[in-house]
Amino acid sequence: MSQTIGIIGGMGPLATSDLFHKIITITDASCDQDHVRVCIDNNTNIPDRTAAILGGGKNPVPELVKSAVRLQSMGADALIMPCNTAHYFYEQITPYVDIPFLHMIQETADALDRRHIRKVGLLATDGTCQSGVYHSILSQHGIDIVQPTGENQQSVMDVIYKGVKAGDLSLNLTAFHRTINQLFDEGAELLVLGCTELPVAFELFHIEKPAIDPTLVLAAAAVRFAGKEIRPEYRGLV
Amino acid sequence: MSQTIGIIGGMGPLATSDLFHKIITITDASCDQDHVRVCIDNNTNIPDRTAAILGGGKNPVPELVKSAVRLQSMGADALIMPCNTAHYFYEQITPYVDIPFLHMIQETADALDRRHIRKVGLLATDGTCQSGVYHSILSQHGIDIVQPTGENQQSVMDVIYKGVKAGDLSLNLTAFHRTINQLFDEGAELLVLGCTELPVAFELFHIEKPAIDPTLVLAAAAVRFAGKEIRPEYRGLV
Repeated sequence: MSQTIGIIGGMGPLATSDLFHKIITITDASCDQDHVRVCIDNNTNIPDRTAAILGGGKNPVPELVKSAVRLQSMGADALIMPCNTAHYFYEQITPYVDIPFLHMIQETADALDRRHIRKVGLLATDGTCQSGVYHSILSQHGIDIVQPTGENQQSVMDVIYKGVKAGDLSLNLTAFHRTINQLFDEGAELLVLGCTELPVAFELFHIEKPAIDPTLVLAAAAVRFAGKEIRPEYRGLV
Repeated sequence: MSQTIGIIGGMGPLATSDLFHKIITITDASCDQDHVRVCIDNNTNIPDRTAAILGGGKNPVPELVKSAVRLQSMGADALIMPCNTAHYFYEQITPYVDIPFLHMIQETADALDRRHIRKVGLLATDGTCQSGVYHSILSQHGIDIVQPTGENQQSVMDVIYKGVKAGDLSLNLTAFHRTINQLFDEGAELLVLGCTELPVAFELFHIEKPAIDPTLVLAAAAVRFAGKEIRPEYRGLV
């Protein structure tokens, strides 16, 4: 009997859909019944995570816990959460459930290790950057981080909030491309798409740069946990 | 307070992901919290519906009911089911839940009426065709159906089972294109993509023909039920 994966979603909805789609796409399946059973709570009542971390925003933990508990009661054998910023609250969710909770940033660090990467450019929300969640985990693996500075960081927030969350496909990307170039100039070997809206943005806006996609890494961890095989063409990416 | 939509999914997983993605895309939202709360049970334990209808396959009703009951307990205020064939079992699921269950084929008939369509070409599984579910509902609306005959119907099954469910992107589409032409030759005003794998196939294989997409129609019905607005550019399609 294979295992069921529960997704604490809604942060944002497109990132949730992206993770679900990646789980299906990378699973080596030939009929419906070969696929992973996945339960999703696309809980759009979860308040904005960055606003909470930077101060003043509503605490998202109660809604995160409600989704986690509901998913366990639906039969989930493990949880995943496609929102990097929300991992700031990871330890405040785990006491409420009795099932494993795969940690996206830990999984990403492991994947970077497997690919022998030693310096990355981090694209993430202000909340994720301020929380230091990537810094603390990647430093344990001896991986250095370079980050956008000043108004370059604002261009990342614009792509996430205006481009993806608000769905503005006409967004001017000049500043964002300058930001990416800054990170490679500072020695980044690849970009970490450290907000789950960013792989969506890279696809929407056809941006092609060396990058690791933590959503894809997390999808692979979920497929492995569920006891399924990953399609050969994806094994090198995760 | 907006309403929560529950999706009985897994039939197949890509069709489930497609419906979820369409709900998000068509919702007129500018931040996470504007979107519909959606709960999904991508229940890959549901046996094949066509096999059950044609005889010999395992009865899918118990697993369909389990998903419906679980989704109600997750807080769903209405159910939707992105599988045309499974609607053959619709009346066997409704007694087990106390919430509305939006009927994809009924919604599609209403949408065809709004567009004043009187003759359609039905692309669907053998199970959906044999069940007569489109025929009985569309005839109540005075809409005629033309269907693929003989080996042309096999080309539809191949696109669904080999192209989408098994993920074979190199599938030869010559017979399928001949099938589509047959339907237009017989007077179809547009195609009904009467299997939820077909909009996925049309996108994967870049097939562009006049068609109505019941998945998109169902997504719109769900967004309206949830009390949200549909983006203006999608209103004419649903």
